[in-house]
Amino acid sequence: MDDEKRDFVSIDDLGNEEILGLFRLADAYDEDLRAWASQCTGSILATLFFEPSTRTRLSFESAMQRLGGSIISANDGEVMSAAKGESLADTVRVVGGRYADIIVLRHPHEGAARVASRFADVPVINGGDGAHEHPTQTLCDLYTLWKEKGRIDGIEVLLAGDLKYSRTVHSLAYALARFGASLVCVPFPGLEIPKSVLERMQRDWGADVTRGEFSDISGLTPGKDAVYVTPHKPHQESLFTQITPPAREKIDAIYMTRLQKERLERDLDSKDYPSIDSEFLKETRFRDTRVMHPLPRVDEISYDLDQDPRAIYFRQAALGVPIRMALLAFLLGVVKLDAPLPERSSRPVYRSDAGINCANPACVTNGEGHRYLAPEFTILRDSPPLLRCVYCDLEVSPSLVGHVASKKLHRGNAAEAKRILPERRVYFEDEGQADSAGFGTGATS
Amino acid sequence: MDDEKRDFVSIDDLGNEEILGLFRLADAYDEDLRAWASQCTGSILATLFFEPSTRTRLSFESAMQRLGGSIISANDGEVMSAAKGESLADTVRVVGGRYADIIVLRHPHEGAARVASRFADVPVINGGDGAHEHPTQTLCDLYTLWKEKGRIDGIEVLLAGDLKYSRTVHSLAYALARFGASLVCVPFPGLEIPKSVLERMQRDWGADVTRGEFSDISGLTPGKDAVYVTPHKPHQESLFTQITPPAREKIDAIYMTRLQKERLERDLDSKDYPSIDSEFLKETRFRDTRVMHPLPRVDEISYDLDQDPRAIYFRQAALGVPIRMALLAFLLGVVKLDAPLPERSSRPVYRSDAGINCANPACVTNGEGHRYLAPEFTILRDSPPLLRCVYCDLEVSPSLVGHVASKKLHRGNAAEAKRILPERRVYFEDEGQADSAGFGTGATS
Amino acid sequence: MDDEKRDFVSIDDLGNEEILGLFRLADAYDEDLRAWASQCTGSILATLFFEPSTRTRLSFESAMQRLGGSIISANDGEVMSAAKGESLADTVRVVGGRYADIIVLRHPHEGAARVASRFADVPVINGGDGAHEHPTQTLCDLYTLWKEKGRIDGIEVLLAGDLKYSRTVHSLAYALARFGASLVCVPFPGLEIPKSVLERMQRDWGADVTRGEFSDISGLTPGKDAVYVTPHKPHQESLFTQITPPAREKIDAIYMTRLQKERLERDLDSKDYPSIDSEFLKETRFRDTRVMHPLPRVDEISYDLDQDPRAIYFRQAALGVPIRMALLAFLLGVVKLDAPLPERSSRPVYRSDAGINCANPACVTNGEGHRYLAPEFTILRDSPPLLRCVYCDLEVSPSLVGHVASKKLHRGNAAEAKRILPERRVYFEDEGQADSAGFGTGATS
Repeated sequence: MDDEKRDFVSIDDLGNEEILGLFRLADAYDEDLRAWASQCTGSILATLFFEPSTRTRLSFESAMQRLGGSIISANDGEVMSAAKGESLADTVRVVGGRYADIIVLRHPHEGAARVASRFADVPVINGGDGAHEHPTQTLCDLYTLWKEKGRIDGIEVLLAGDLKYSRTVHSLAYALARFGASLVCVPFPGLEIPKSVLERMQRDWGADVTRGEFSDISGLTPGKDAVYVTPHKPHQESLFTQITPPAREKIDAIYMTRLQKERLERDLDSKDYPSIDSEFLKETRFRDTRVMHPLPRVDEISYDLDQDPRAIYFRQAALGVPIRMALLAFLLGVVKLDAPLPERSSRPVYRSDAGINCANPACVTNGEGHRYLAPEFTILRDSPPLLRCVYCDLEVSPSLVGHVASKKLHRGNAAEAKRILPERRVYFEDEGQADSAGFGTGATS
Repeated sequence: MDDEKRDFVSIDDLGNEEILGLFRLADAYDEDLRAWASQCTGSILATLFFEPSTRTRLSFESAMQRLGGSIISANDGEVMSAAKGESLADTVRVVGGRYADIIVLRHPHEGAARVASRFADVPVINGGDGAHEHPTQTLCDLYTLWKEKGRIDGIEVLLAGDLKYSRTVHSLAYALARFGASLVCVPFPGLEIPKSVLERMQRDWGADVTRGEFSDISGLTPGKDAVYVTPHKPHQESLFTQITPPAREKIDAIYMTRLQKERLERDLDSKDYPSIDSEFLKETRFRDTRVMHPLPRVDEISYDLDQDPRAIYFRQAALGVPIRMALLAFLLGVVKLDAPLPERSSRPVYRSDAGINCANPACVTNGEGHRYLAPEFTILRDSPPLLRCVYCDLEVSPSLVGHVASKKLHRGNAAEAKRILPERRVYFEDEGQADSAGFGTGATS
Repeated sequence: MDDEKRDFVSIDDLGNEEILGLFRLADAYDEDLRAWASQCTGSILATLFFEPSTRTRLSFESAMQRLGGSIISANDGEVMSAAKGESLADTVRVVGGRYADIIVLRHPHEGAARVASRFADVPVINGGDGAHEHPTQTLCDLYTLWKEKGRIDGIEVLLAGDLKYSRTVHSLAYALARFGASLVCVPFPGLEIPKSVLERMQRDWGADVTRGEFSDISGLTPGKDAVYVTPHKPHQESLFTQITPPAREKIDAIYMTRLQKERLERDLDSKDYPSIDSEFLKETRFRDTRVMHPLPRVDEISYDLDQDPRAIYFRQAALGVPIRMALLAFLLGVVKLDAPLPERSSRPVYRSDAGINCANPACVTNGEGHRYLAPEFTILRDSPPLLRCVYCDLEVSPSLVGHVASKKLHRGNAAEAKRILPERRVYFEDEGQADSAGFGTGATS
């Protein structure tokens, strides 16, 4: 593993200045897409898709070839050596050996791209890891907003539809919070944005979250509950402050999402799922609103809107090519950006050889990687302990903390637990787990 | 949609002079296939195959890369975003956005390529749309004949085998009629060339169609009925004139087709399906005959013929590469042809928002496009009305014609119907359909 | 078919000097893999994979593109025209027409690549034909040994694990015997190296085969039987000479194989299948041993070994790219090697139009090719007759020999049989077969 290689597993792997640098580079590419066919000549991109995603794959393959590079592609999980029992770690070590100079990975297990980035000798780009992240979609969404509105900080973005299961919406929400945009979340009832997403926006970027009523808009939502996220405000005591803000005067963009039918609860009645059409956009506050959608759409955006200049979802998809060109050229080291590296997290990391596991069944540590990966967590808070899986980002609250040498066990919120140095701590889910690791329950404080 | 872009959805999208220009261009490419790898550098071809056709896909991908261009490919219908409910219109708008500079589409729905050409911003080539058209196969067949015989007009081509279901044979028949070749159709009994195909050759290119007896050739057909098509003759009263022409003295080419087993009627006994072998070609009139086949063959051409210089089916397949290079370079605008544009049809077009639908269940307007496409027809004849679907080319004869404003209804052959201006007409299949559209059956004249 | 084109269907299609020349060429490529992107510009490689093998396909596609060439790929057997009944012979004639300049074929039938090489106009590389050969894996294995050890002749290689079903191990064994390396075969009990493989090493390269006891190594094998193969020794009377050689002092390389579970006998208990780990390598004789594996591994090499410098299986996989670049450039004629052609076998060939068939049910003559291929054998021995299938290399011993003109039949070991000129012989499995071919059993001598 090369210390200097850069990966793009999460949007946080790039600094704000780097992201803006990529936007400017993408603009240069976009002026004449056919003019760059010798920039990455001789370089090879491997697209390893363990689950299908034709659009993502094609946009990367287009971007790499527009730069003059070549493609090797394995786009059928069943066909991959996985069928012969090969681990992802081995696959990326081979492909990142002499085969390819950069890898895009799509994998059903959450955190799989992080695993790949650790084992491959070449840069790894996350092309979607389960329901976890899809950072190039987010990069493309941000780039589109930046191009359309000239900036991201200070703009107002309305997120609508399925805010619970849409991976792209969560990643976009974090990125908007980070760049200082305001959000209005207007979910379809039952598909509200998860509390953990809001908490993270508060914790990591100091966003201010308030709950209110969204003035009714025909067709947008049968419910009226909205969540407002405002950047860089002092941390609130409670998660939601129950005020009713005025309906926003001016919405810069609506980000519409399709219903993730494959993940839907059985008893959710989706017949009133919103659909945006020309009629909808007639309100004054939408006069300058851009309608975005990660595509594919089903029925949530009417075909009659396609000719409206505010409907930019096809333009948004198209911009996926130049921004991916910029990302590839940067990670391959062909283009340098005059920007500082992103700040590394200063939070301590806990590696669990014997203790707590990630509680997310879709996490790569419980799936593909369980044979060779130890669970690993960022320690967000000491007491009561709060950990975040470094692979899938799920937050877990271990109930017990032990001392690696004395094997003494304490409740997570006990004073004794807090006094153990982070590197000497062992976290446990429960006494049974501690017991099998030889930590004495009798000693629990 | 760009007014100036050219598509190749049907062989009729190219003028005769343009086609001959492509032949000459293909000849230049064919002199040294490896010498053109910088002509289309920076351009990307997308091959979107919603049903498999390895040969067609590979020949396009070879052609584009021999020109120095690159490929993005989605060749599994099930994997395409279609799985998430995306329309073809949306798919080609995305792929034709920044992803690719030209698209080849293969789709099971008849007329799908026409739909794609209307929605994509880049040129669309029809790589086969159901049983409808496969125009680059036709282009390749014509090119092969032109190279082998030095011309197309005036040559005699014998079509043998399954003339009912073979898409390539129908398209070739039209093209030969258009270029002035003569045809002898010697079908396997039960698989005769459809009447509608013969009618179109008469109507569109003034071909003269006669039925006769084909002097028996061992192994070619157990039946003796043949159809003779001669170019540019005055229109006949009846479809078939029952004369018996002399067996042709000299056959320039035999175009053999495989039995389309997947489409076969259950009760057709195929055990006597013809097979051409060395013995067959011993007749004098075949001395200079080229044996062609669109491949793959099954048993209808014997392996013992492969070494015969008159067996040119592998050469025919090989010429698919240079002729597709020529087509790609032309449509990408890299090469200009000194030839006039094809004549546009002057026939009026009828767009049906409320009335008649295409009667072809495989038509794209009844399949993939039903959500967003209105049926559309070329008006071939006013009275009794005869319409041709602009997507799948099926001809339909509406029984009723209404007036869009008065909602009055008339029988199709009524004098009143004829007096309605074409742009005010609404065509209906039957009274039930008219009734549900609010057209009064009481007023039927 | 072009007399001068070169194929790589078997490792024996290259001479020793040519192989060493390819090693040196690969070294040059490996110095800077991205620096050769204009060497094969304009050339196209077709990867035709009738069964999946992602790793092999990707390594070829990487190699060709690193040389500046392009790829067309059909990697799903079911999708291939085979679905329409096309023969492999036709497929490669089409693809090797104008489509591609060189073909890599993977096919489940043994001998399929030899068939392809005979019908295609362009060079054919065997990317694996059933359980028969996978010569580029062997080439890569040899190249790795040569790079690591500086030579192949005289080195000691230990083959471990499943030596019965591992195709790569058999091909490697032949090649090592040919290049003068010594082998120690330490199989998992029940998965011993087949007698036919040992016999061939004796017959074709004069190797000396002895059986002995391998001093036990923890974890390597629960059994103790080993086979020792030493190069270039006088032919032994019996296959095995029952001496017990001293355990080798110094092992240059261990070639570990995974258990081919898909081919395993039901009653073989695999729970003690060996696994190599750090502990294992602590013995003195392994101090300078390279651990190789064709990958993918399952559990037979522990992850804890990955950081050990002697663990070179990932390096071995990586070297597959430059050695395949060398092979492609050579076969395409872009690079010449200053080396003599391999010696052609002087053994007579027997083509069976009426007589004996290959007894291997997986042979291409019994599968895909039965419609158009006559069985063909190299005559290894006249009396009693011993034939080797030219496609799948299976050796067969016909019991009867007839005279093509007199139709007289003789037992294979009869003096009369030996007196028939090779080109007049017809070989039969049994009397029934001879009888149906019109050879008189009454006349059997």
